[in-house]
Amino acid sequence: MSIRYIGQKLAQHIDEELMSAAGAFSLDQLMELAGLSCAQALAKSYPNTTHKRVLVCCGPGNQGGDGLVAARHLHHFRYTPTIYYPKPGGKDIYQRLLQQARNLGIPVVAGADEFDAAIAATDVVLDAIFGFSFQPPVRAPFDRVLNALAATHAPIVSVDIPSGWNVEAGRQPLFTSPDAAGKSQTVETIDPAVLISLTAPKEGVQAYTGRHWLGGRFVPDDLAIKYNLNLPEYPGVDQIVELPRTAPKL
Amino acid sequence: MSIRYIGQKLAQHIDEELMSAAGAFSLDQLMELAGLSCAQALAKSYPNTTHKRVLVCCGPGNQGGDGLVAARHLHHFRYTPTIYYPKPGGKDIYQRLLQQARNLGIPVVAGADEFDAAIAATDVVLDAIFGFSFQPPVRAPFDRVLNALAATHAPIVSVDIPSGWNVEAGRQPLFTSPDAAGKSQTVETIDPAVLISLTAPKEGVQAYTGRHWLGGRFVPDDLAIKYNLNLPEYPGVDQIVELPRTAPKL
Repeated sequence: MSIRYIGQKLAQHIDEELMSAAGAFSLDQLMELAGLSCAQALAKSYPNTTHKRVLVCCGPGNQGGDGLVAARHLHHFRYTPTIYYPKPGGKDIYQRLLQQARNLGIPVVAGADEFDAAIAATDVVLDAIFGFSFQPPVRAPFDRVLNALAATHAPIVSVDIPSGWNVEAGRQPLFTSPDAAGKSQTVETIDPAVLISLTAPKEGVQAYTGRHWLGGRFVPDDLAIKYNLNLPEYPGVDQIVELPRTAPKL
Repeated sequence: MSIRYIGQKLAQHIDEELMSAAGAFSLDQLMELAGLSCAQALAKSYPNTTHKRVLVCCGPGNQGGDGLVAARHLHHFRYTPTIYYPKPGGKDIYQRLLQQARNLGIPVVAGADEFDAAIAATDVVLDAIFGFSFQPPVRAPFDRVLNALAATHAPIVSVDIPSGWNVEAGRQPLFTSPDAAGKSQTVETIDPAVLISLTAPKEGVQAYTGRHWLGGRFVPDDLAIKYNLNLPEYPGVDQIVELPRTAPKL
């Protein structure tokens, strides 16, 4: 039996179940393990000898938090990460994770000019902008960010779902929300070289043909059975496992 | 420059600094990473092919919490852990970590008879009873637990300081608190085959000659410099690094 690709609703439901009174996980715990998985996936894909500079792009939600955790671990893995967050997260944990990163001397930038400079000077991008709760259309300032990511020559490692892709329908044309005159703009679609799915891969990446990791070695067995996740074995003491690559459709 | 062995006060101070408003870490985060380190150290010392059954002995303090986290990760590493806690921890997180373990079907025992059965049927023991805040003498029921650990043929992996050892003075005769007649009992001293020090090794293990791991790949560089910790490089994406073994004194 092959691994199950899950939809948006089930992804949200599993998250809630893990953090319910019965599941007993705290957001701090899950985010720490998720972010560590992301850092490991990047490190196993791009060694720090050739890809030392990492631009970690963080959205305002929980996936942005995963990115902040990943940036900290990447620092300890001897990368030189830079954090970019176009819009701060509202949760208290987001501020604490930013503070932890700043305590390590990790540059944290929020402005568009600083972002342009940072993306021009990076070896690899960690895309932690939109997660499994993403709903189109894209709003400013994220249209600009996605266009820049689509244009960069640096390889992209996306977390869970490439930012801007539909969580269930996958890679498809993307637009901004309509302006006063009812006009939308096209947003470029990003094509990450590497993907790190968390807990279980999402339906939207079924046709994804790049390098694909799975993280989230904390899913209880009964939960995996209940939802037929068919998770693979993780090797050794790693927090990630590589999934077989999907062949491109001819 | 070789690694620094730190005293009880500095160990407590570093912990407080990490979890202060400035350090910004939550207990959940640090305990998750510490427990993961413990699980990795055990797994790298005793493979699950030969040492599948692990008795995780947890004290009521934060080190017991590390043990509960380690038991969960050991389950995901395909060991079959059993948790023994003679006295429950008072913090909310302790109950949540117990619940997470129970959700995985990990047996959790608290009684003396169950402990005797569990220690007779284990391949290796993870000793997370007393941490760097330990002060002698030993009180019941821990005298009984330490005597049983000293008598077991299963190898012991101790966290931070072998339980019962003086955090600064190391391995020395150990007694219970005096009874009504003013009499103390002798408690046997345990001799772990493996040690996993967290953040930095403690003064009490300077003469320890067993296999020695260091965990806690989260110490900020400026903190390590401020306290001259002289931490070694961690390899790859691991959360632990092996320290050179100390030669026995002749």
